[in-house]
Amino acid sequence: YDLKADPCGYCLILNNVNFSQDSELSTRAGSNVDREKLEKRFKSLHFDVMTRQDLVAQEMVWELQKLARLDHSARDCCLVVILSHGCQTSHIQFPGGIYGTDGKAIPVEKIVNYFNGSNCPSLRGKPKLFFIQACGGEQKDQGFEVESDSPGDEAPRFSVESDAIPFQAPSGASDELDAVASLPTPSDILVSYSTFPGFVSWRDKSSGSWYVETLDSILDQYAHSEDLLNMLLRVAHAVSAKGRYKQIPGCFNFLRKKFFFMCK
Amino acid sequence: YDLKADPCGYCLILNNVNFSQDSELSTRAGSNVDREKLEKRFKSLHFDVMTRQDLVAQEMVWELQKLARLDHSARDCCLVVILSHGCQTSHIQFPGGIYGTDGKAIPVEKIVNYFNGSNCPSLRGKPKLFFIQACGGEQKDQGFEVESDSPGDEAPRFSVESDAIPFQAPSGASDELDAVASLPTPSDILVSYSTFPGFVSWRDKSSGSWYVETLDSILDQYAHSEDLLNMLLRVAHAVSAKGRYKQIPGCFNFLRKKFFFMCK
Repeated sequence: YDLKADPCGYCLILNNVNFSQDSELSTRAGSNVDREKLEKRFKSLHFDVMTRQDLVAQEMVWELQKLARLDHSARDCCLVVILSHGCQTSHIQFPGGIYGTDGKAIPVEKIVNYFNGSNCPSLRGKPKLFFIQACGGEQKDQGFEVESDSPGDEAPRFSVESDAIPFQAPSGASDELDAVASLPTPSDILVSYSTFPGFVSWRDKSSGSWYVETLDSILDQYAHSEDLLNMLLRVAHAVSAKGRYKQIPGCFNFLRKKFFFMCK
Repeated sequence: YDLKADPCGYCLILNNVNFSQDSELSTRAGSNVDREKLEKRFKSLHFDVMTRQDLVAQEMVWELQKLARLDHSARDCCLVVILSHGCQTSHIQFPGGIYGTDGKAIPVEKIVNYFNGSNCPSLRGKPKLFFIQACGGEQKDQGFEVESDSPGDEAPRFSVESDAIPFQAPSGASDELDAVASLPTPSDILVSYSTFPGFVSWRDKSSGSWYVETLDSILDQYAHSEDLLNMLLRVAHAVSAKGRYKQIPGCFNFLRKKFFFMCK
């Protein structure tokens, strides 16, 4: 993909830190660190960055739809970053759900499909990138190489939290089939997940999530010279070497070409 | 990943061409062309290739389990190729299901999980590659660029068939949660799909499937110089430019490093 436009595209960051009491979801300490890093990073990579903070599920949907309805004709790509609690969902295409601050979940595949070839004509043939920092479920992975003396639910390190949620059934499931039925041409989509579907994703209260911290650092070092898939391999490599509990980021790639960020 | 062993790993090809009458699944003409190409290709890339033809779902499961239980200590990777009819499934991790010749479906995530860090210790840390030629569902994509005068269910070109199936509910769904619960460390896995989840996958009766034909040709040209993710981008690019109905291959990547085939 050849990025020529400057700004090259919109970047929408949805950052949920504080959740309603009803939701029983904890405050995501450290997520503002993630948000600030990524705002700065994607501005420097020539994106038109917009941030929305603490939205309920319906507001998130509105923001995503609003972005999808913008005219992207003069842009070469589009980027969506979501920082929130997440959950495991049963789905047809892309796994996982993302919580609004009201504790209602939006399926990732619904989010992605707002931007597909039929719903967002001005992004046809252009890369649509999604970066998702959220739990994919509640499983904690202790890995196989590192010996652990106290398995179970204790916090693995002092200030590290997971983006998991307690006993929360994914809502909005009835929307999933609609999303699929309206998908005509799903090319040029990449979804980068902080963790494997079904597993938790770790966040440090002061330095932010493992995934975003690593992603930002890799972009800093390699965005001028390497394509996105190779950088995401580096992110997976670095994150999977961290901590006592294991976490492996991964991506679902339906891009057709190498993606290089614009670095002037 | 550094492939040093020769052979570098086992390659199991499951090729289903003829299906039972009860299954109402059509004969997959052209699939033997795919099988022969890939046997030859992966032998030349230093794999220990084993092929099984026309297996019912339970036999497929046995073959996969048998492969997972082999001692891979002296090998550096493992490769599974599946050529069959497929279907859309609701799932937690990897989408899609694959039909045995008896018309029973096996979820792809179940297939993948036989080889994860806990179920297959001798492949820990080593790349586990899955190539799947099958439909991900029954949606036909007419794309957005090419004008088509006759939408609907007609065959798009004379000898092209889809690997879709008529009105077949995915069976074996109750197995999916088990598979997830037993997954401890899902790193070093790549699943390459011939088509986007939910969509059909095209096959020519004489030259084989679009995906395998393209994959084989790209491996022929680039396996000595490029890593797997880049080659899969080339496959997606070439396949998505084919035919009147559109098809976009993609991959779910949980590898941590570049994968290069061994070329001596």
